[in-house]
Amino acid sequence: MEKIRAYIEEHKERFLEELLDLLRVPSVSADPNFKPDVLKAAEIVKSRLVEAGVDHAEVCQTPGYPIVYAEKIIDSSLPTILVYGHYDVQPADPIDLWTSGPFEPVIKTTNAHPEGAIFARGACDDKGQMYMHVKAFELMMNTATLPCNVKFMIEGEEEVGSKSLEGFVKENKAKLASDVILISDTGMLANDIPSITTGLRGLSYVEVEVTGPNRDLHSGLYGGAVANPINILTQMIASLQDDQNKITIPGFYDDVIEISLEERAEMAKAPFNLDAYKSALDLGDIHGEDGYLTMERNSIRPTLDVNGIWGGYTGEGAKTVIASKAYAKISMRLVPGQDPDKITKLFCDHFERIAPKSVKVKTMPHHGGMPYVSPTNDDGYKAASMAMFDTFGKTPVPVRSGGSIPIVALFEQELNVKSILLGFGLDSDAIHSPNEHFGVFNYFRGIETISRFYKHFTDLK
Amino acid sequence: MEKIRAYIEEHKERFLEELLDLLRVPSVSADPNFKPDVLKAAEIVKSRLVEAGVDHAEVCQTPGYPIVYAEKIIDSSLPTILVYGHYDVQPADPIDLWTSGPFEPVIKTTNAHPEGAIFARGACDDKGQMYMHVKAFELMMNTATLPCNVKFMIEGEEEVGSKSLEGFVKENKAKLASDVILISDTGMLANDIPSITTGLRGLSYVEVEVTGPNRDLHSGLYGGAVANPINILTQMIASLQDDQNKITIPGFYDDVIEISLEERAEMAKAPFNLDAYKSALDLGDIHGEDGYLTMERNSIRPTLDVNGIWGGYTGEGAKTVIASKAYAKISMRLVPGQDPDKITKLFCDHFERIAPKSVKVKTMPHHGGMPYVSPTNDDGYKAASMAMFDTFGKTPVPVRSGGSIPIVALFEQELNVKSILLGFGLDSDAIHSPNEHFGVFNYFRGIETISRFYKHFTDLK
Repeated sequence: MEKIRAYIEEHKERFLEELLDLLRVPSVSADPNFKPDVLKAAEIVKSRLVEAGVDHAEVCQTPGYPIVYAEKIIDSSLPTILVYGHYDVQPADPIDLWTSGPFEPVIKTTNAHPEGAIFARGACDDKGQMYMHVKAFELMMNTATLPCNVKFMIEGEEEVGSKSLEGFVKENKAKLASDVILISDTGMLANDIPSITTGLRGLSYVEVEVTGPNRDLHSGLYGGAVANPINILTQMIASLQDDQNKITIPGFYDDVIEISLEERAEMAKAPFNLDAYKSALDLGDIHGEDGYLTMERNSIRPTLDVNGIWGGYTGEGAKTVIASKAYAKISMRLVPGQDPDKITKLFCDHFERIAPKSVKVKTMPHHGGMPYVSPTNDDGYKAASMAMFDTFGKTPVPVRSGGSIPIVALFEQELNVKSILLGFGLDSDAIHSPNEHFGVFNYFRGIETISRFYKHFTDLK
Repeated sequence: MEKIRAYIEEHKERFLEELLDLLRVPSVSADPNFKPDVLKAAEIVKSRLVEAGVDHAEVCQTPGYPIVYAEKIIDSSLPTILVYGHYDVQPADPIDLWTSGPFEPVIKTTNAHPEGAIFARGACDDKGQMYMHVKAFELMMNTATLPCNVKFMIEGEEEVGSKSLEGFVKENKAKLASDVILISDTGMLANDIPSITTGLRGLSYVEVEVTGPNRDLHSGLYGGAVANPINILTQMIASLQDDQNKITIPGFYDDVIEISLEERAEMAKAPFNLDAYKSALDLGDIHGEDGYLTMERNSIRPTLDVNGIWGGYTGEGAKTVIASKAYAKISMRLVPGQDPDKITKLFCDHFERIAPKSVKVKTMPHHGGMPYVSPTNDDGYKAASMAMFDTFGKTPVPVRSGGSIPIVALFEQELNVKSILLGFGLDSDAIHSPNEHFGVFNYFRGIETISRFYKHFTDLK
């Protein structure tokens, strides 16, 4: 065990520098302008895996961005761990709220990270967490402690719905055969409260367009007499939630698997400080579905959030215009039982039905994702729990996360393998936000925990 | 009278070219980036007035954009006409919907303008209409038919609320002394249905900002548990109108001077084809306040329109973010009796009061404007009616317009002079929209009508 810490200590500067290099590549998959950078990130990941000692590595072409596949098979009779991660990142906007360049990584301390954190888009989600696996593998190779086979599948479209992954998985079932899938793309409760994510919400994401008159109009000459698509859009969106903040789309809750009061009581024991939560976000009050606690609202309950809205004049000053069109991007987080395709259809049908005849409505579904719950009594979970205990000195808490990693449900369905969500980010790491960061402590402890997981998992099998 | 038509015919090419030159200057007052162009437009207007023969012309500095003042006093015992217009224009966005450059004027035919129309931002509002007055003045000077004194006051901040005009008018009451104010910044019903605007709506315009969490958040980790400022903003805006499309702000209608059923019956005689209206705007249905006709909704009734809304991720693809802030620009058109300052305060107080404690709300009033009704039995209206009859062969119809020219109320209050709204644009001219245009027919008939107005007004006095 001491070998692990010694190796990390010896190579920590290089481990950091390599990650910073990867973070300098703006691999934003949502924006076609960054295509060369996304492709470059894939090549870097492949090169680093080759340097770390895989037998075979390839950049697999897909209809979208490529998937980096690599493997090290030491003995086909031993267990195989399949590592999943992604090299693409969220867009960096709003850029002007970053205190340093999103693709110019720097290390700064924060309250949660007194030992320093790496500030950059993708530092936590997911380049930093994905790269822990590459370094843990290098560590095991160079200390001759790799106890089992390992396969890597690192994609470049996670932030845009993993569009090409399903086809890749279906076409490569034999290649991807494994005993457990290990993913670090989630968080833990705090640096002194290790936790393992055992549930994820699903996702339905729809862009809507409301068209009123066929051209922008003068609000004096036409105001009051024609449907203003922005006013109509606000009314339509507002009607999707009632005064208890329940979603009004008919059938929306039909398939929700309700959690028992006993389970909810168990969950409520997880450490949570409402005042600290409000204060960290500068909230005058919390807000959410009646009858549920804050930590339930963001994990075991489905939601409907507008992620973006735009229409009309948004420049400086005043323009008295009635826009021809208004738009919104609306996403729903889903919980076990809910099917994203069904919910997307319910949403679209409802949204088109509630539109007054004075406007035209278009709904454009983006990617969706299945919700997921993982067992806490199988070898994968036990190995992860032991690895965390070794590293942090505490048994980790199982938690349901509000986020979505849609491919976890896909893996179970297509490969019949469970995923272990062994993440090391913190809520305060601001993923998807300006000033995303990842603790240096978390990065090195993650590499350590992952290395320990391999041993425990192989021992249990 | 034949002199007028002959002079226009002889100089029509130059009259057009001079206007096109003025339209090439992007004098967008709302956007500080265009400041040099706004200033250049003022200088051009001054130069053209000097060339046309004024005694005196100056570019008067103000705290904002300058006001061009010019005068020709032929005999202080004769009546004086004060011409008001503006050389600034609305922003051109959305630029990509223009079929030709907004500041590269071209002449194309349209259904309403078979003789051709000048396409450019400001072609109708108000450079084209303002420039008719400069050319009518030139015509009267060069044909020795100027029957009275004339003063010009051409401002550069009309599209941003005429912020500096009030101070200028108050400080220059003697200089601006006149018997009537003549303004061409409105429209007429059709090229074969001349009309004169006898009423204008007022304006209240407020920008609002709703802040939820103090930073953008991941919609998976926080969704459902914090107030999403976009969702809240849509709910707040939606609540400002009820299911009869009446405005719910307490006190909003208190001061509205209701129009008698007799007057409404008279107004309803104005030619209006609902099918053609819907078809021209490609509307599936009309939309507006219950109990009023379309032509009442856009003229004698107050409104509330969102002119712009924005927040969150508005780029390509999907981003699962809860924005920290959401914004909207909201304007209300007001009718006689309503005071813009009072309505603005009612709006702001109400909007702040209905905000849930989970968000913070800021309201930022932009400019406002008083509603206006003008008499139809004084010398100014009579002269305008006769001038239109001479030009078009038909007595013009008096109409209430839905637009706002806030300075008309200011002129009455400070100068004690009535304004005549002698406009030549058409509703289909797309002012404030992409592809704004002004009929070549309207431009020349406007110059003719204005020249005739001077004679009739002087004869009546």
